[in-house]
Amino acid sequence: MTVTAAAGFEAAGIAAGIKRTGALDLALILNRGPSAAAAAVFTSNRAKANPIIWSQQVVADGRVRAIVLNSGGANCFTGHQGFQVTHRTAEAVASALDIGAGDVLVCSTGLIGEQLDGEVLEEGVVSAVARLTTDGGDNAARAIMTTDSVPKTAVRTGDGWTIGGMAKGAGMLAPGLATMLVVITTDADLPASDLDQALRAATRVSFDRLDSDGCMSTNDQVTLMASGSSGVVPEASAFTEALTEVCLDLAMQLLADAEGASHEIAIEVRGAVTEDDAVTVARSVARNNLFKAAIFGNDPNWGRVLAAIGTTDAPFDPYLVDVSMNGVRVCHAGGPDAPREDVDLTPRATHVLVELHAGPASATVWTNDLTHDYVHENSAYSS
Amino acid sequence: MTVTAAAGFEAAGIAAGIKRTGALDLALILNRGPSAAAAAVFTSNRAKANPIIWSQQVVADGRVRAIVLNSGGANCFTGHQGFQVTHRTAEAVASALDIGAGDVLVCSTGLIGEQLDGEVLEEGVVSAVARLTTDGGDNAARAIMTTDSVPKTAVRTGDGWTIGGMAKGAGMLAPGLATMLVVITTDADLPASDLDQALRAATRVSFDRLDSDGCMSTNDQVTLMASGSSGVVPEASAFTEALTEVCLDLAMQLLADAEGASHEIAIEVRGAVTEDDAVTVARSVARNNLFKAAIFGNDPNWGRVLAAIGTTDAPFDPYLVDVSMNGVRVCHAGGPDAPREDVDLTPRATHVLVELHAGPASATVWTNDLTHDYVHENSAYSS
Repeated sequence: MTVTAAAGFEAAGIAAGIKRTGALDLALILNRGPSAAAAAVFTSNRAKANPIIWSQQVVADGRVRAIVLNSGGANCFTGHQGFQVTHRTAEAVASALDIGAGDVLVCSTGLIGEQLDGEVLEEGVVSAVARLTTDGGDNAARAIMTTDSVPKTAVRTGDGWTIGGMAKGAGMLAPGLATMLVVITTDADLPASDLDQALRAATRVSFDRLDSDGCMSTNDQVTLMASGSSGVVPEASAFTEALTEVCLDLAMQLLADAEGASHEIAIEVRGAVTEDDAVTVARSVARNNLFKAAIFGNDPNWGRVLAAIGTTDAPFDPYLVDVSMNGVRVCHAGGPDAPREDVDLTPRATHVLVELHAGPASATVWTNDLTHDYVHENSAYSS
Repeated sequence: MTVTAAAGFEAAGIAAGIKRTGALDLALILNRGPSAAAAAVFTSNRAKANPIIWSQQVVADGRVRAIVLNSGGANCFTGHQGFQVTHRTAEAVASALDIGAGDVLVCSTGLIGEQLDGEVLEEGVVSAVARLTTDGGDNAARAIMTTDSVPKTAVRTGDGWTIGGMAKGAGMLAPGLATMLVVITTDADLPASDLDQALRAATRVSFDRLDSDGCMSTNDQVTLMASGSSGVVPEASAFTEALTEVCLDLAMQLLADAEGASHEIAIEVRGAVTEDDAVTVARSVARNNLFKAAIFGNDPNWGRVLAAIGTTDAPFDPYLVDVSMNGVRVCHAGGPDAPREDVDLTPRATHVLVELHAGPASATVWTNDLTHDYVHENSAYSS
């Protein structure tokens, strides 16, 4: 049910002809209200796609009625002509639904630097509007897939209210603020400012901690829309908790479907001075190609972990650090501990624990291994 | 001739039995003077190997008589016991040559986190001292190889003086200050302070601009030793220029022998506000796995270049940027320009030009592509 699990939402996912394969490539989600409160977080990449530039303006007033998303083209670095296509798409949605274009978010995903056909999008929008239904969430989730092998959806329910979401993403997974294309809907009745606060809290510990390949996208956007249809005003803490669960659920689905990966790796850093330090240290490991290749080879090469964290400026003494892999402490106080052979790295789920012994803070960053299939997928196909 | 090209130096490269394969694994270089002036730059990784910790102390007074280097083990994160091995190795060299251990540099390379056998090293040193000759440079260059497929050496001559050098390195190529193991000798008569200044100027635009795989080593060291044997005191500018040529020559040999690479990629950034900005922008491209995989696939995917540079905080407008690949401008002012099909990426030598149009500064960073062989070499073997 995904984005249509919460009351007040309708969705559609159709084949508009943007993808040459004829696959679903255009999703539309409508918030029927009574509320139109919304919040969104965007990529922190300064190279921003046209839909990002548009959507940042639209969401500024905390009010969104509809969001249209296309796969098959990122509409990024396509100049003035590309921005016109984004604008035209929003106008087409507004016209067909009799709402204002300033309440329509646009998201695009696909190859950078290629023009989208505005006419194809316009016709697609008309067709999508005609197919909006309260059970269209699954088709919408399929329509935003690019190299994804499966659609990603998640639902959590609270006391009289529901949160549902969908996500796409299988490469360029290394957000700075938001990540990938994610739409989350709820029938809770919360104002835009509360949604914004909850969304930033939830993404900070979920999508922001995902660093599959160190490459930040130009098109990332996470949108939260509230219809207020349940009439329930949840406690902020309960809502944020459920929203965080939805975000983490979707993030782990993105991780599991990352291009060519054979391991999902949780890099947990404990004993940092601050949480930011813990994230910095964990991310330095997540981005180290030698470490990532070693995990692919089931090689518990803890020296590469220490070489990676030594490049950070987080306060800790490298010679006091412990490193454990899948429960086996292979490095103690910056020296060899249990034999490498004791570590079993054959399961996909991999846990690397780095204990800094410098303070009370901790954080986990999730990444993937560096595999032949990653190189193959990203060298053989333009994306 | 390499490190024995300059008068006043003797070298040896022997098989001490550190490597199980029986290959050459221990190099020794002696400066017979009359000068013992020296300078060195070290990895900026805070995770430093024991030989780095030792050598930083030794070179502090600008005086070095000998340098001993082993492959087959990095002696990094091997604790107090590992430091004792480094110390014992320096003492063995000092004792056999009747010099002070405080004038003996030590370098190690190989797997992190494994103890070296002090006795094997000690016996190796005695054997190496016995084989010191003025034409031992080639053997020394071979003895420091790990996953290198060829030894790397370079020589330049000035007006009555000579500079010769050797280098090893094929992975973990992403220096912060110095890089890899490099020894350079000269018979010019210059004090340590001049050598230090020349060395920092030369490494800043050579080894420091090499970023093969984004992974900074724990053992990197570049050492420059002067015997003064020529009796010639060169002009600082002429000496620095020749030294820079030797460093660039060795750096390009490292680039060409990088593990599994199929392209050498020069990323030239022009029009930056400062040289540091140009380096930052170029390095962000050099470290982008999606870009590197695209080059492997001969795919001129300029969108990945822009997505990479958009993550930096260097001052420029992404929508004014031009990108050329091997002479074809595929992106102009942040939009599509010449067709991608016009770009031929089949040659190993690849040139990516990024014009920021923000200022007068420029810089080039060299990197490699991300290939199946890189993944294979770094997943199948511990190193």
